Amino acid sequence: MNGMDAKSYDDPARPPLRLALLGCGSVGSQVVRLLREHADDLTARVGAPIELVGVAVRRLDAKREVEVAPELLTTDAAGLVARDDVDLVVEVIGGIEPARSLILAALDNGASVVTANKALIAEDGETLFAAARKAGRDLYYEAAVAGAIPILRPLRESLAGDKVRKVLGIVNGTTNFILDKMDSSGAGFSEALEEAQELGYAEADPTADVEGYDAAAKAAILASIAFHTRVTAADVYREGIAEVTAADVASARDMGSVVKLLAICELTEGADGPAVSARVHPAMIPRTHPLASVREAYNAVFVESDAAGQLMFYGPGAGGAPTASAVLGDLVTVARNRLDDVRGVGESDYAQCEVLPMGSTSTRYHVAFDVDDKAGVLAQIAQVFAEHGVSLQTVRQEGRGDDAQLVVVSHRATDAALSATVEALRSMPFVHDVSSIMRVEGESE
Amino acid sequence: MNGMDAKSYDDPARPPLRLALLGCGSVGSQVVRLLREHADDLTARVGAPIELVGVAVRRLDAKREVEVAPELLTTDAAGLVARDDVDLVVEVIGGIEPARSLILAALDNGASVVTANKALIAEDGETLFAAARKAGRDLYYEAAVAGAIPILRPLRESLAGDKVRKVLGIVNGTTNFILDKMDSSGAGFSEALEEAQELGYAEADPTADVEGYDAAAKAAILASIAFHTRVTAADVYREGIAEVTAADVASARDMGSVVKLLAICELTEGADGPAVSARVHPAMIPRTHPLASVREAYNAVFVESDAAGQLMFYGPGAGGAPTASAVLGDLVTVARNRLDDVRGVGESDYAQCEVLPMGSTSTRYHVAFDVDDKAGVLAQIAQVFAEHGVSLQTVRQEGRGDDAQLVVVSHRATDAALSATVEALRSMPFVHDVSSIMRVEGESE
Repeated sequence: MNGMDAKSYDDPARPPLRLALLGCGSVGSQVVRLLREHADDLTARVGAPIELVGVAVRRLDAKREVEVAPELLTTDAAGLVARDDVDLVVEVIGGIEPARSLILAALDNGASVVTANKALIAEDGETLFAAARKAGRDLYYEAAVAGAIPILRPLRESLAGDKVRKVLGIVNGTTNFILDKMDSSGAGFSEALEEAQELGYAEADPTADVEGYDAAAKAAILASIAFHTRVTAADVYREGIAEVTAADVASARDMGSVVKLLAICELTEGADGPAVSARVHPAMIPRTHPLASVREAYNAVFVESDAAGQLMFYGPGAGGAPTASAVLGDLVTVARNRLDDVRGVGESDYAQCEVLPMGSTSTRYHVAFDVDDKAGVLAQIAQVFAEHGVSLQTVRQEGRGDDAQLVVVSHRATDAALSATVEALRSMPFVHDVSSIMRVEGESE
Repeated sequence: MNGMDAKSYDDPARPPLRLALLGCGSVGSQVVRLLREHADDLTARVGAPIELVGVAVRRLDAKREVEVAPELLTTDAAGLVARDDVDLVVEVIGGIEPARSLILAALDNGASVVTANKALIAEDGETLFAAARKAGRDLYYEAAVAGAIPILRPLRESLAGDKVRKVLGIVNGTTNFILDKMDSSGAGFSEALEEAQELGYAEADPTADVEGYDAAAKAAILASIAFHTRVTAADVYREGIAEVTAADVASARDMGSVVKLLAICELTEGADGPAVSARVHPAMIPRTHPLASVREAYNAVFVESDAAGQLMFYGPGAGGAPTASAVLGDLVTVARNRLDDVRGVGESDYAQCEVLPMGSTSTRYHVAFDVDDKAGVLAQIAQVFAEHGVSLQTVRQEGRGDDAQLVVVSHRATDAALSATVEALRSMPFVHDVSSIMRVEGESE
């Protein structure tokens, strides 16, 4: 039975699927609005109407972006998911608890679930996926990564016949806005953060964004799906952007690059077979790279696979309506599966890859330092790199009177070898100052 | 039963799904290669092995990119799809016949089908979709539009809870390569085409690409899926790039724009309710638009929807391996559906929108002309636009001694009104030459 057929659209006898919504904030309100405004389209696409039967909220009298009939509202979320007439549950409360308990109860009660909860999936997806499998129901979460951008479904389904090698994502709009501002205006980090806060792109406490926690949760989810293995937020190496200076950004510009906070997921070789690296840190990428043109608070995910080559998915990474669009896309699939009594593509972790520690991860460095402008300095510096087993791709030296600026870009080496090299250089007498150290991505070597 | 579960991966008892491949050229060979190289992954993702049981080719002794066991090869494609042990058919022959008859026979015989055949789907999708519905089988064709880029699945599934308003696609790599070359080098069309031919980006007879036939087929498919209506290749207005001059490209550059061949699908209002416009023509887009940075032979599809906002999907639009990646992604879904005995999201045309003729389509024009540099000319020209009901967004006049160059960008008006305006201007005595006329897209007005 196929819900998209004219047949089922013309079949008004199909009973509605009953939906419980957990949370009615900026995303939940937009879910309610879209359910209403697109009711006929949704019925045609699912094969049956979707009927909202309850909305769990914290306060009944809170101000909402959308009108909800008072009889639908309840503060008893646990009671709502325990009702025996609920087929579908959308969770947009966020955070670990009570979201986890509610989702588990919903699945256990036979409902299929759609969530936008990146923190929960990244921390404890395993428990939830196991519960969904056991219940024979779907748990979908496209909205958890990069808002409205369809990325989990393409990774999971469109590329199912391919082998993904690497995922590079700009998955946090706040930090992209700040870095874009620093790049376009020459502003320092604090100044750009203030502007982001004034414009509503950054929260009063910007820690989760600026320190990369938000991006790390998304990196864990992307790595798990791209490589069919289990990666949690705790496995992801994380550096935020608070240490990125105007000098770093200027140095990037000098070499035709731009600084972005990247979520990087890579399939690589470990000691005992395939391994993955999952990390979040600022990196320089060439301005010719498709990710370089992702401006303001937009998100994008760049995927490299064996057969498809280079793909990029671009769009708004946050916001009530975009996130609700992703939730509704999942909801239609989950509802169709429910009608057919099947499950969609669930999680897989058959690859069971080791997650490499950052020190063993292969990266590249860009280092700019001020050195004495005299003979032999370059040779000694090159010697330090060589001693650490790091080969150099480019070295650029520029005399400036008494001293010189030296800009070095390395080939790939372990992150540990690179940071030890920089440490050694810092202590050399003819090195005055290391003005910029940053990893480099998105370039062929 | 969910094929992605560890459970089914560990279940070797599941009998294989039997696949017939029609065509073993550049795409077919890569399909064979991927089936082999990723056999274990595919088994895990489908829930059962996929076994290649036959390959239909034109000549048994042709040179192929991949080794195929001689006992699998046959020149009897009709006999292959009629076998009673075939569950899945991949069609990568291309063209209308015999592809259509073979797909119909395969569906009728109970097989699910994956095809990369844009011409066939755009010309006669209706017959095929009806046959798939009747047979209760899947017919998937992600590879038909924009090669490896997942675009049909996101439009159909990820955005199923949203309302798509507009699709702008760079869906032909040959023409994008040529226009990109003209933009970066200042070359004329013929010179850029020659270079594309030398580098293998354009065929000896480049008509299908250069005249927009290839893009028009893709526009028909995109419009049908985006708007849940029926649009065929014959419904698509089509202008190629052979008339694009170096002057057009330079004029675009002067206003911070770039010329691209766009497939444009738009949901709009007709006389009797919702209508769609589907068209392919060169257009100027601002360099700040995400599509402007799509270089060389890459493709990209930009989507505007009510809730998600602006999304873009970018990647290689052609080539054996990328196209095979899209085919295999579909194949995994179709195979999983086959195991579950369900159909995936099929076609829908419930919206049944009128397709607007080009003359009634609302567009914008950029016109550059040389005029007498004397008082009153600008006023008379503005008057001509006004008489045709076309309002102007910007007018830029530049004196150059005896004459002046005037560059006009209009607001949206019907294409008929705009072309009548330009016709009228051409005949005015103080207009020496119209150096560039081009539609404008991708800008807010």
